[in-house]
Amino acid sequence: MTRFNYLEVEILDDPTTAPTLRSFIPVAPNSHFPIQNLPYGVFKPSSGGSARVGTAIGDQVLDLSVLEKKGFFSDTVLDELEHSVFDEPFLNAFMRLGRRAWKEAREQVSSLLRADNPLLRDDKETRRKAFYFQADVEMCLPVFTIDYTDFYSSKYHAFNVGMMFRGPENALQPNWLHLPVGYHGRASSLVVSGKDVRRPRGQILPSGSNDPILAPTMALDFELEMGAYVGIGNELGHPIPIEKARDHLFGMVLVNDWSARDLQRWEYVPLGPFLGKSFATSISPWVVTLDALEPFRVEGPLQDPEPLPYLRFEGKGAYDIHLEVAIQVRSMDQPHVLSRTNFKYLYWNVFQQVAHHSINGCNLQTGDLLASGTISGPTPDSLGCLLEITQNGKKPLILPNGETRRYLQDGDRVIMRGWCQGKGYRVGFGEVSCKILPAL
Amino acid sequence: MTRFNYLEVEILDDPTTAPTLRSFIPVAPNSHFPIQNLPYGVFKPSSGGSARVGTAIGDQVLDLSVLEKKGFFSDTVLDELEHSVFDEPFLNAFMRLGRRAWKEAREQVSSLLRADNPLLRDDKETRRKAFYFQADVEMCLPVFTIDYTDFYSSKYHAFNVGMMFRGPENALQPNWLHLPVGYHGRASSLVVSGKDVRRPRGQILPSGSNDPILAPTMALDFELEMGAYVGIGNELGHPIPIEKARDHLFGMVLVNDWSARDLQRWEYVPLGPFLGKSFATSISPWVVTLDALEPFRVEGPLQDPEPLPYLRFEGKGAYDIHLEVAIQVRSMDQPHVLSRTNFKYLYWNVFQQVAHHSINGCNLQTGDLLASGTISGPTPDSLGCLLEITQNGKKPLILPNGETRRYLQDGDRVIMRGWCQGKGYRVGFGEVSCKILPAL
Repeated sequence: MTRFNYLEVEILDDPTTAPTLRSFIPVAPNSHFPIQNLPYGVFKPSSGGSARVGTAIGDQVLDLSVLEKKGFFSDTVLDELEHSVFDEPFLNAFMRLGRRAWKEAREQVSSLLRADNPLLRDDKETRRKAFYFQADVEMCLPVFTIDYTDFYSSKYHAFNVGMMFRGPENALQPNWLHLPVGYHGRASSLVVSGKDVRRPRGQILPSGSNDPILAPTMALDFELEMGAYVGIGNELGHPIPIEKARDHLFGMVLVNDWSARDLQRWEYVPLGPFLGKSFATSISPWVVTLDALEPFRVEGPLQDPEPLPYLRFEGKGAYDIHLEVAIQVRSMDQPHVLSRTNFKYLYWNVFQQVAHHSINGCNLQTGDLLASGTISGPTPDSLGCLLEITQNGKKPLILPNGETRRYLQDGDRVIMRGWCQGKGYRVGFGEVSCKILPAL
Repeated sequence: MTRFNYLEVEILDDPTTAPTLRSFIPVAPNSHFPIQNLPYGVFKPSSGGSARVGTAIGDQVLDLSVLEKKGFFSDTVLDELEHSVFDEPFLNAFMRLGRRAWKEAREQVSSLLRADNPLLRDDKETRRKAFYFQADVEMCLPVFTIDYTDFYSSKYHAFNVGMMFRGPENALQPNWLHLPVGYHGRASSLVVSGKDVRRPRGQILPSGSNDPILAPTMALDFELEMGAYVGIGNELGHPIPIEKARDHLFGMVLVNDWSARDLQRWEYVPLGPFLGKSFATSISPWVVTLDALEPFRVEGPLQDPEPLPYLRFEGKGAYDIHLEVAIQVRSMDQPHVLSRTNFKYLYWNVFQQVAHHSINGCNLQTGDLLASGTISGPTPDSLGCLLEITQNGKKPLILPNGETRRYLQDGDRVIMRGWCQGKGYRVGFGEVSCKILPAL
């Protein structure tokens, strides 16, 4: 049995009691970005300038490259570097530094933002240069990813989908309870929230026909997922033991793994999803660190049968992250929440995913994205994709204004949100929000 | 129907007659690297120094970064650049320049190496600095790859494998004749020839059991493939029409797509191969350009049913590349050829792969590797993997020294070679040669 080494993780505030930390930047109670969060993202000021790394605080962004240049990280390992890690178009340079640097940077930024610390608070010139309103910046893809892996770790999702195609007896494939099933996704088509998604064309086999056609997908779906970014990789040939997995992971984002179900159905036998997925995968722009999520660790589901020793995990392997997906079609004034679920429902946790992914010696690298697979919960109002919600279009969704949807139509916007709930504050991911553009 | 635009392709020598071009560097008749080839690779001199780009000529390497520095490309588009493209650890900077630059650089290198051109031939100082014997350099992974796609484009291979598992009636899946089936591979574990391959461990379901075990693979296999490198990508959302596909492709390498058949069998349903492949994929170090391969274009197999218009290709879509795979086990003095096949047997050609890959808008990028899938021919002595050769271990292979193999054993070396045969010379790929190391 393996347990985490908790020594290195410093919980800066206790979420079960009222928050003790407060920033001099005002933060609304339902903001996703209080001082307890401090996620990392990459942004460009609308006023011009190159992409650089920042953290979100309330409705503002703090430009960490400014703090770095001005020597505010002089007491951390960042000071020993010859190169900048925050004046960079991706987080990778910072991620590559490892957990000691992540911890020291986080503690320093937290300290600098505290209401009772005059250092940054009273430095008017630096504040003028380093803070932007979020409305005044463009968020960029935060991480450069070479390999993107998509797991299939929700038992509810795997069962629901399997039941649709193979019936309840054979819903779960024989391997499913023994290993976190996953496949390689397409890294090039990772895009950040706000980048609209073009309806893909592809081969579709019309019902009752033996002859495929080329057409825009008629079964465009979202998949509510989360993704974990690898911070530190492993050498080819050398697996990561599960008890070390946490040290290799940097943080998490929301993931909308867009799917064209009709393309997927025709192409995926026997080698898995390909063009049905590779037209776009959208992520939220702020990477919430595992350190910020640490207070929200909870026990995951009981695993029966017990996994093989290399996958055994005792203790809190899940994270209590509230998730919701909403849709806003052209005729609606505001988004309508379709589903509410939770990251803690995942059967296989991220540490098991890392241990499994590398057990054959596969080398994970800084920036790799490990997506969870669609996160469905146990109830009909907690399903993570339209395939499940409408039962592959058989039971159309009825929207508040009377419109119906089997799958997504052009102009529809899908919005996913996620947050951990502390007492009186949230540690959140913001959202991933994208609109469907018509096929070319 | 679509045809290539042949205008841009200059065939520097005619392979059906005796070669007219000769280099001042001596080239043996069976060398893979005559002046008609001029492949690109990345190497480090054994005497020290960083990785840089070179071309192979006979048994030597010409350091192109030296020529670039000395202004030998002053009549080409390379001269307009502010940065070096050959003093680089990967070919990507050069590949990104596009076909005009590839063509001009190739013509210039060809001209400089000609026996009748005194410019480089008589420049003793440059020759001393720019030439190395291949034995005196270490070849590196030539291309930085973000996305690696593995197709499944040999009908013989797909049929043979399908027949083993589903019988002759259902050997080919219904989609197989309509589209080039493919899946995303693992880019991080691409390695260059000479890097030995560690036997992976993973979950295996023992015959007759319901309980998987964790063990080193007992069914380690090679797959004889070739891979095409994308030189110029496309914008997300904008497919590459098949008639433009050639302009996007830079060159080709040999690929050994190592496979752990027992891991693969247990894990691959329903999302495809994952850990059974991601422990290593080996490539040959020299990228042979499509321009060098141009004289060896031939008609591919008849496609019946006729593909959808976006995949239709008339004319010479195949390349006549002789391929062989050999094994050398510890007790053998020299390699034994197991199989001889040809790249021209592929049912789906590389241009169809590009058109299909991007039809959904998926963005290909400079450095992407498109592997062919195992290349099997029509006869029992032209099969591209042990799964087919030994019929999944049922008919062990008997080696010349009496040893047998169902699958690979530790210490076995697998060597793949490929070349186009001109009249009196070869345009070749060299080899991809790797030994199996025992599991950790």
